[in-house]
Parts: sequence; structure tokens; C-alpha cells
Amino acid sequence: METYQNILVAVDFYEQSDEITNKALALSKMYKAKLNIIHVVDNLPMLDSGYGVESPFNMDLITELMDNAKKRIAVLAKKLQIPSDQVWLEMGSTKSEIVRVAEENKVDLIVMGSHGRHGLALLLGSTANGVLHHAKCDVLAVRLKAE
Amino acid sequence: METYQNILVAVDFYEQSDEITNKALALSKMYKAKLNIIHVVDNLPMLDSGYGVESPFNMDLITELMDNAKKRIAVLAKKLQIPSDQVWLEMGSTKSEIVRVAEENKVDLIVMGSHGRHGLALLLGSTANGVLHHAKCDVLAVRLKAE
Repeated sequence: METYQNILVAVDFYEQSDEITNKALALSKMYKAKLNIIHVVDNLPMLDSGYGVESPFNMDLITELMDNAKKRIAVLAKKLQIPSDQVWLEMGSTKSEIVRVAEENKVDLIVMGSHGRHGLALLLGSTANGVLHHAKCDVLAVRLKAE
Repeated sequence: METYQNILVAVDFYEQSDEITNKALALSKMYKAKLNIIHVVDNLPMLDSGYGVESPFNMDLITELMDNAKKRIAVLAKKLQIPSDQVWLEMGSTKSEIVRVAEENKVDLIVMGSHGRHGLALLLGSTANGVLHHAKCDVLAVRLKAE
């Protein structure tokens, strides 16, 4: 029987991550698979400096965002008993970073919320859709109850 | 631990359905879940009869398509030991019919290929994407090896 051996769960602290991580944890136990976790801090928008103002690229803000995310993902990883070398905190395009980390680590199943980021997904093309199109492995899209 | 109890696997005889049905079967055994199967025969395009020609809606062709699909899905259902009241052969929009059958039968996991219909998906918006957006349950998109 074909099984999954290396699962990557993508979390986004704005959503009900518990529901997603619990399903991923249950699957990893059932399949006796390695469980990895990823969170991606979105790129900040860079304003065009053509108007003569300085680009508002704010290093302090980025550092603060990353520090904050690092603390939150560490708490979650501890709760899920995921060792630190299976924890991925990345910055960039959420879709691309999930797909990249999955490929580089030979992940065979990505678990993520079916809609992301506050329902804007339907208008903007969701992260799940993007991952679905570009991932080289299976994708389990978990429907969040509150939607 | 949260588990799936009622799984619906969507098959499309153009693709490597075995890979998808095998995963669905393995999952249903692992979760001791009921396994349903669905195949949707796409609506035939209806040409505009504004040019003075008759619409080419061909009842014989539709009957033949449905008969053919009925035989194929029966063979597959038998192989997977799925009883006939858990076999769904529908005609219409693939995405809508999968979502409808899933809702009406309180399915909690849909298993399907991540791309459908010969790679046109990326251009046309795949069935998997459509199901992902509209389903009220989780969706496992199985990546087909040959893609």
C-alpha cells in the first residue's frame, strides 16, 4: 500500500491553524511519516520610489515580523513535537516558498488550509490553488470550519 | 483523533485513475471509511443555432457515452469492492457535480487528480481548483506521476 513518508504542513497564524496541524499530525502518526512545518512571512509591498520619496522598506519592521513569527512557530513546533531541523520559517511568496521547501526536502504530501488570508483568496487566487498547480507532490487542502 | 468517515473519489478515465483510486482505497481502509466513487460525463457543447442550422445535440451520442461510462465505472467499482449505491455516474459540469454529490452525501474528503483532462487544466482553470473553491469538505489532490 502506498503511503506518505514526509509531510509538510503549512501554517498561517491568521487562520485556525490548529485544525490544520491536528490533521497533519494525525496523518503523520497514521503513516509513521516525518512531519515538517512551514510558515512564510509575506514579502512586504515595495512602493515605487518614482515619486521622489524613499522606498518604505523598513528593516526594523521586517526583523520584528520575523522575530514574532519565529517565536510562534517554535511554540507550535514544540506542541507538535517537531524537531527544529524540520521547522521552516521563510520570507517571500507563500506559494513559491512552500513549493520550494517541499521539493528540496522530498516532501510527498503538503497539508494546508483550502483558503488562506481572510477570504481574499477567492478573489486573488488562493495560495492553495497556487501550490496545487506548482507542487510536484500531493496536496491535502483542509477546509476550515468557520468559512 | 479526527478521521475521515466518508470519502468520495472522482475518476476521469483519461488519466491514470489507478493511482488516484489506489490512494483513496488505502485511505478508506486506514480510516475505516466508506468509499464512494464518481465519474462525470461532461456536458456536450451546444452550438448556437442562430446560423439557421439545427443544434447538433445528439441523443444517440450521449446515450453511447453514458453507456460506455457506466460499464467502465462498474468494472472499477467491482475491483475496488464499492457497492452500487456508492457509485455515482453523473452528467453535467464536472466540478459542480462532484461538489453536489459530496454535499448531498455528507462526504468529508474528496480525492481527485490535481490536474484533469490532459494538461489543459493549467490554461483553463482545473477541475481540482474549482472543487477546492466550492467543496464544503477537505480535498486531497493527487499529483499524477506522468505530468
